[in-house]
Amino acid sequence: MSILERIHSSEDVKQLKAEQLQPLCDEIRRFLIDSVSKTGGHLASNLGAVELTVALHRVYNTKHDRLIFDVGHQCYTHKILTGRWEKFSTLRQYGGLSGFPKPYESADDAFIAGHASNSVSVALGMAKARTMLHKDYDIVALIGDGALTGGLASEGLATAAASGEPMVIILNDNNMSIDPNVGGTASLLQKMRIKPSYIHFKRLYRSALKNAPAIYQFNHTVKEWVKDRMLPDNMFSEMGFEYIGPVDGHNVEQLESVIRWARDLREPVLVHVLTQKGKGCSYAEKQPERYHGVGRFNPVTGELASSAPGFSEMFGKYLCEFAARDSRITAITAAMTCGAGLDAFAERFPSRFLDVGIAEGNAAAIAGGMAKEGALPVFAVYSSFLQRSFDMLIHDIALQNLHVVLAVDRAGLVGNDGETHHGIFDVGFLSEVPGMTIFCPSNYGELHSMMEKAFYEISGPVAIRYPRGCEGAFQSVTEGDAVCIREGKDITLLGYGTMINELLSAADMLADAGISAEVIKINKIRSDDFELTMASLRKTKNFLSAEEVCSVGCIGRRVLARAGQTGVRLQAARVVTLKEGIVVHGSREQLLRDYGLDAQSLAATAKTLLEKDPV
Amino acid sequence: MSILERIHSSEDVKQLKAEQLQPLCDEIRRFLIDSVSKTGGHLASNLGAVELTVALHRVYNTKHDRLIFDVGHQCYTHKILTGRWEKFSTLRQYGGLSGFPKPYESADDAFIAGHASNSVSVALGMAKARTMLHKDYDIVALIGDGALTGGLASEGLATAAASGEPMVIILNDNNMSIDPNVGGTASLLQKMRIKPSYIHFKRLYRSALKNAPAIYQFNHTVKEWVKDRMLPDNMFSEMGFEYIGPVDGHNVEQLESVIRWARDLREPVLVHVLTQKGKGCSYAEKQPERYHGVGRFNPVTGELASSAPGFSEMFGKYLCEFAARDSRITAITAAMTCGAGLDAFAERFPSRFLDVGIAEGNAAAIAGGMAKEGALPVFAVYSSFLQRSFDMLIHDIALQNLHVVLAVDRAGLVGNDGETHHGIFDVGFLSEVPGMTIFCPSNYGELHSMMEKAFYEISGPVAIRYPRGCEGAFQSVTEGDAVCIREGKDITLLGYGTMINELLSAADMLADAGISAEVIKINKIRSDDFELTMASLRKTKNFLSAEEVCSVGCIGRRVLARAGQTGVRLQAARVVTLKEGIVVHGSREQLLRDYGLDAQSLAATAKTLLEKDPV
Repeated sequence: MSILERIHSSEDVKQLKAEQLQPLCDEIRRFLIDSVSKTGGHLASNLGAVELTVALHRVYNTKHDRLIFDVGHQCYTHKILTGRWEKFSTLRQYGGLSGFPKPYESADDAFIAGHASNSVSVALGMAKARTMLHKDYDIVALIGDGALTGGLASEGLATAAASGEPMVIILNDNNMSIDPNVGGTASLLQKMRIKPSYIHFKRLYRSALKNAPAIYQFNHTVKEWVKDRMLPDNMFSEMGFEYIGPVDGHNVEQLESVIRWARDLREPVLVHVLTQKGKGCSYAEKQPERYHGVGRFNPVTGELASSAPGFSEMFGKYLCEFAARDSRITAITAAMTCGAGLDAFAERFPSRFLDVGIAEGNAAAIAGGMAKEGALPVFAVYSSFLQRSFDMLIHDIALQNLHVVLAVDRAGLVGNDGETHHGIFDVGFLSEVPGMTIFCPSNYGELHSMMEKAFYEISGPVAIRYPRGCEGAFQSVTEGDAVCIREGKDITLLGYGTMINELLSAADMLADAGISAEVIKINKIRSDDFELTMASLRKTKNFLSAEEVCSVGCIGRRVLARAGQTGVRLQAARVVTLKEGIVVHGSREQLLRDYGLDAQSLAATAKTLLEKDPV
Repeated sequence: MSILERIHSSEDVKQLKAEQLQPLCDEIRRFLIDSVSKTGGHLASNLGAVELTVALHRVYNTKHDRLIFDVGHQCYTHKILTGRWEKFSTLRQYGGLSGFPKPYESADDAFIAGHASNSVSVALGMAKARTMLHKDYDIVALIGDGALTGGLASEGLATAAASGEPMVIILNDNNMSIDPNVGGTASLLQKMRIKPSYIHFKRLYRSALKNAPAIYQFNHTVKEWVKDRMLPDNMFSEMGFEYIGPVDGHNVEQLESVIRWARDLREPVLVHVLTQKGKGCSYAEKQPERYHGVGRFNPVTGELASSAPGFSEMFGKYLCEFAARDSRITAITAAMTCGAGLDAFAERFPSRFLDVGIAEGNAAAIAGGMAKEGALPVFAVYSSFLQRSFDMLIHDIALQNLHVVLAVDRAGLVGNDGETHHGIFDVGFLSEVPGMTIFCPSNYGELHSMMEKAFYEISGPVAIRYPRGCEGAFQSVTEGDAVCIREGKDITLLGYGTMINELLSAADMLADAGISAEVIKINKIRSDDFELTMASLRKTKNFLSAEEVCSVGCIGRRVLARAGQTGVRLQAARVVTLKEGIVVHGSREQLLRDYGLDAQSLAATAKTLLEKDPV
């Protein structure tokens, strides 16, 4: 660790001699593999971006300049180089380093990242502000070819190119999203990859233009004529970017020189860099998608700690089962084949499987088109990324009451990925979609029965939301929009999904204290059938709901509104949620405690409610 | 009207002789100008697409094939040709023809349209379903160059190109969104426009390939080599489309022949058609943006009926005022400079104005970047289109509590544009955004004072939502999160925005009937300060709220939930909203009556509530 130990900032990286750079990169790789093998985290993407990140710190100073990451799971080397390598043992743990850029963690992190394809827009916004406010920092955005498949990136690129604002966009092209990259954007990049690099010619051409005596100055038309013939256009240059590339992403000295040149052009520049995901680690190079996001593993062999199948895997298994019997069923993913449990489906039903790239809005609109023509599309997507489809859910699905099934994975707290990845807004925004049915299974049996209902009992838009991870102790398969799973007389506890396990444990604790709690489990969110709940409230006159969602749009409030409208009078009521919805990273257990959503806290809250004098 | 009278379907169009086509187009143009001058509607876009639409009906049969419109405001000729021209006097009126494609109106309308850039995704979904279910219809999508600036279109194009599914995408390129088109996409298309048409050469090349004896068949590499040199690539062909164009969009016979050829290629084809917005109508050709969406006008001179300045104009005026004093203020629009009242700002502060194209997510992310660096961005956007930014509002603005001002225009019912354009989901989805403040002015004075608060009293994300059209009778400027604007003792009426006028009228009617109604006006939606409202409810014990939003996420329910949590007991309560949120087109007055939101209905509901026995 001899070189790395001396590095705490961009300035320290700049002090190194050229011949120290590759040894530093090699050290960083060893450090990454060793550290991530203990904490888990994103491996392959970070291994691919080591030289690129070192080169960026040779050219820029991230305390002064703005380095914008896209998605952000490739930021580890940046964190290592900016005074945070000693904290890597705390990566993604509660109170520890975030796995994503976080301005609250360091001034070197210019903006948050987590959702894909926003970096160019953010960089442009910063560039416009810089010009308006007469500041002098440089701006560089680092975007992968996977994130480039998102339409937001196209929008940002088009606007940035036209702006003329000096900024550098680095396209980190490893031909992968989390899964191998797909679609027309990938094929477009493939064509650029095989063309020779024009960097050398471009430099000569520019310097010739600059230094030629006035009499030899080309006029605009002639210049364009020469450029057209000698420097073939591609999408980026036709948009208005100065395009540089492709460049070898593992040659740190060449990268430094190219990026410096790009920065000094003082216009919108796109540098196309070719990297290898998992670079320098044999098992990650071979299976980069397997080593994208990992738990603990053996750093020598790459052997991953095995884990029990969770909701994603069970969903994928059940979906194959339904699809085998129903040829209308088709599955769509937005670059999350493995994560959403669709690998088996993709292999077994390739002609009925569609990966649309990181493009959730596109997926929803495609599903709308399919459903309009009689197919039965299932869009499997993480709750947090489904936020990108909100308008399409309304416009392209709900307005025509089309039968599209949303498999909403990672609903609720996701744990170590933190703020940007928790799936805690969906109960609210899905409820706003006209005619949307929202099922919330508490276990695998219910997942299966609710999928069956979603396919064969519902005719409009329908979502099934389930959490990251596994089912808990409650494994009964219940029926009905809502169901009483434990009778009691003193207080009504209400929830859905795996939160039911906390409520049942809380009821046990309350029973020990002589309090009889009734537990109502909601199976269908946004039902108009409140009868069972109202009957319970009339009996107990006390209410406590527990939900892993933000407070606006939570079910607890809807129950209370219904009680108010139908004249059910309560003595005490409390709605426990994740409040505003900005929830840090950490284990689910720790986060539940933070918000009073664990069994112990819920039992304590119930006791407090009952101690209050009747209002 | 001799030719037009005989046309009721694609089949009728096919029966015409070639020499009748241009006369038909001329008839249609005269009909459009005459009809729209009486009803109002979209003029310039429809005038530009006459020949193109006639050509489409020569090639396709829209009862069997699927014609997907993008945005849809260019569908009038299609409606005229498919048995609906006799109903054009009812265009955009309650119970009459919709101004957009509507499958419920005709089997010739394959899918709804209204929001931009979805057509390629929808077409792809239909194509996949067709293949899966072994159907034989053809699919063609019609997308403008404006809609192409939306990232959803890029996503759709990339996926469609890679799919290999036979379908034709017609790019209707008039170099305009509603305003002149902007950004890198526009510059990219500009380069394509000036290149010569390769159609003739492409045909020769293809037929040579097809008919050459085996010995002359080129191998793949040689073919590519020839194509690279003779048929220069562009973005579309590099993605995987067969690119045909550019084609003269006002030569109906050539269009027919090119579209037929494109259809018969049986692969993803993009046909690039050049049209002129407003074609054939001198005043619309000269000022296409002025004649994009119009009210009544003089068909000879083009003189538009004048209208009083509404909220949009007042917003634009006030914004200039604030911007003149504060150099941090910058304005962003997503292709709605005029519509959102920003024309004066754009002219006065060009370097602080940014039109990002039809790209609302991009606009929000850019605003986030600007705010992070100390600028004070205002994104002026229609409520319904802001749905596209939902994820960016959370991810790129709220998670860092950035001070971005959203000017949410067209909030509430918009009237004649119908289902796709009503701004009735924002109260719910904006409330879900962490830390979002939502102001709702009832008149211009409050618009000004709330803009001042949004700029100088709020430090995080803040929205000001205001309706289409003008202020009403209530013109006092009130203060506080909520305010009692009329005291009473029998029932509490609650609302916000211009709905306050209906509530005050209802209170007058109730007074005539001996009922004393209190009226609470909400200024700040999603406040935690319910004190004033709860005090009123404790006094009157009866509650009626009226809101021009869908029921989920409405304020009325939040008030009742708060009452439930704080032990305020009610005798009767009713929450009146737009229910699920699928609201047809028609005048605002008519739609308010349909949902019981006009003063008379509200007074009647209040009476009914008070007649009920206390619960």
